[in-house]
Amino acid sequence: MDLIKQLFYTKNISKNTATLDEEESRHLTLSLRKKETEMVHFTDGKGYIYSGKIGKNNLKNKTVVLENVQIIEFKPHTKPQTGIAISPIKNVDRFEWFIEKATELGVKHIYPIVCDRTEKTNIRLDRMEKICISAMKQCLNSWQPIISAPQSFKEFLEIDHVFEQKIIAHCEETSKTDLLESLLPNKSTLVLIGPEGDFTGSEINVAIKKNFMPTSLGDFRLRTETAGVYCATIMNAFLK
Amino acid sequence: MDLIKQLFYTKNISKNTATLDEEESRHLTLSLRKKETEMVHFTDGKGYIYSGKIGKNNLKNKTVVLENVQIIEFKPHTKPQTGIAISPIKNVDRFEWFIEKATELGVKHIYPIVCDRTEKTNIRLDRMEKICISAMKQCLNSWQPIISAPQSFKEFLEIDHVFEQKIIAHCEETSKTDLLESLLPNKSTLVLIGPEGDFTGSEINVAIKKNFMPTSLGDFRLRTETAGVYCATIMNAFLK
Repeated sequence: MDLIKQLFYTKNISKNTATLDEEESRHLTLSLRKKETEMVHFTDGKGYIYSGKIGKNNLKNKTVVLENVQIIEFKPHTKPQTGIAISPIKNVDRFEWFIEKATELGVKHIYPIVCDRTEKTNIRLDRMEKICISAMKQCLNSWQPIISAPQSFKEFLEIDHVFEQKIIAHCEETSKTDLLESLLPNKSTLVLIGPEGDFTGSEINVAIKKNFMPTSLGDFRLRTETAGVYCATIMNAFLK
Repeated sequence: MDLIKQLFYTKNISKNTATLDEEESRHLTLSLRKKETEMVHFTDGKGYIYSGKIGKNNLKNKTVVLENVQIIEFKPHTKPQTGIAISPIKNVDRFEWFIEKATELGVKHIYPIVCDRTEKTNIRLDRMEKICISAMKQCLNSWQPIISAPQSFKEFLEIDHVFEQKIIAHCEETSKTDLLESLLPNKSTLVLIGPEGDFTGSEINVAIKKNFMPTSLGDFRLRTETAGVYCATIMNAFLK
């Protein structure tokens, strides 16, 4: 495969054409000054990377149509699936940092969970999705994390999420194992991360009853978004 | 030890008094509305946590003096020392994010290195130091990373930095081992991380000649600051 230098994004793909939305098209035509016969690479966020040619005169349109679309590569998720359920953070920038880094590190599912001590209960899903797409393109990945709508901690635990190992990371001074020591490398993994004020004792007990393993993330107290990136890193590095 | 809820910072410590600078004093008096006889906890960034009492009438001064200063705790660095040598990043926010996270994750030394493809060659050391102090206080740590002045990549490699294992992380398609598989858990560790355009082939060769092990950081391309936090996480979790 030729070395891909830049990646665009669209889900609007037909038999052998693909249409970029206005924003992607604008980026293509104005920022990059691409000529009309150039090859463009793009992803659908589901593991596929495609090539397509900018059709004649297409750059004059608001939405660029790519022709001769071909699949260049499909990258199956070879590693076990990963999920991070994390409390929204009062400072939106910090939560967006986490979303961006989780995308770079290949986290498959992100579940915003509203806990007892969560200070900010809503997030802008449309904005989070844009951040994922941007991070995916920047890092030439072809997988976009699936971000769920926010749910309460209790609601989230009621659902049987199909992960083989389930972990709750917290700061309380109770019996815990270390994350790296707890993980089995070939198992799909879900980690729960609480708000800045941590999970309550009651939330931890509910999670334990649902077979979540209480875990510490090293010796230092971490901010919520740091804990999120810590877990995403460990899962990226350790799960095979 | 009583649970510490908040940590201040000063290096200005005498036999049994300590003086907070104007900013710390302002934070103490205005934001927190602490009464005059309250106990305050503070760190010097060198592993020590102290307690001190706000002296009578001291809150009227611009710089608060704490009395009856006592050492509460000293946390020696029990783990092997860690260092990250990393290229400055054009977007200052991103570099500051790395500095904050590296502090939370207990990195001992940070060396900004100017590489061939580094786009922004200077950093504001005073600002970086403030970020370290703030992160350290926020996470109730007592160790402040030592941030060196920026140096060129070549100058940096000329110096014999005393780390037992040395690693260069890069994206080139050449023979590399995986970071987690390369690390020995009981050895002090230095990792080199390049700019967004990666190290050049020539820089990689120079590092290899100086016994740096070429390493990959997982399957995905990472931004520079993400690579920095990735390495800080792995070292935090894995080195004992």
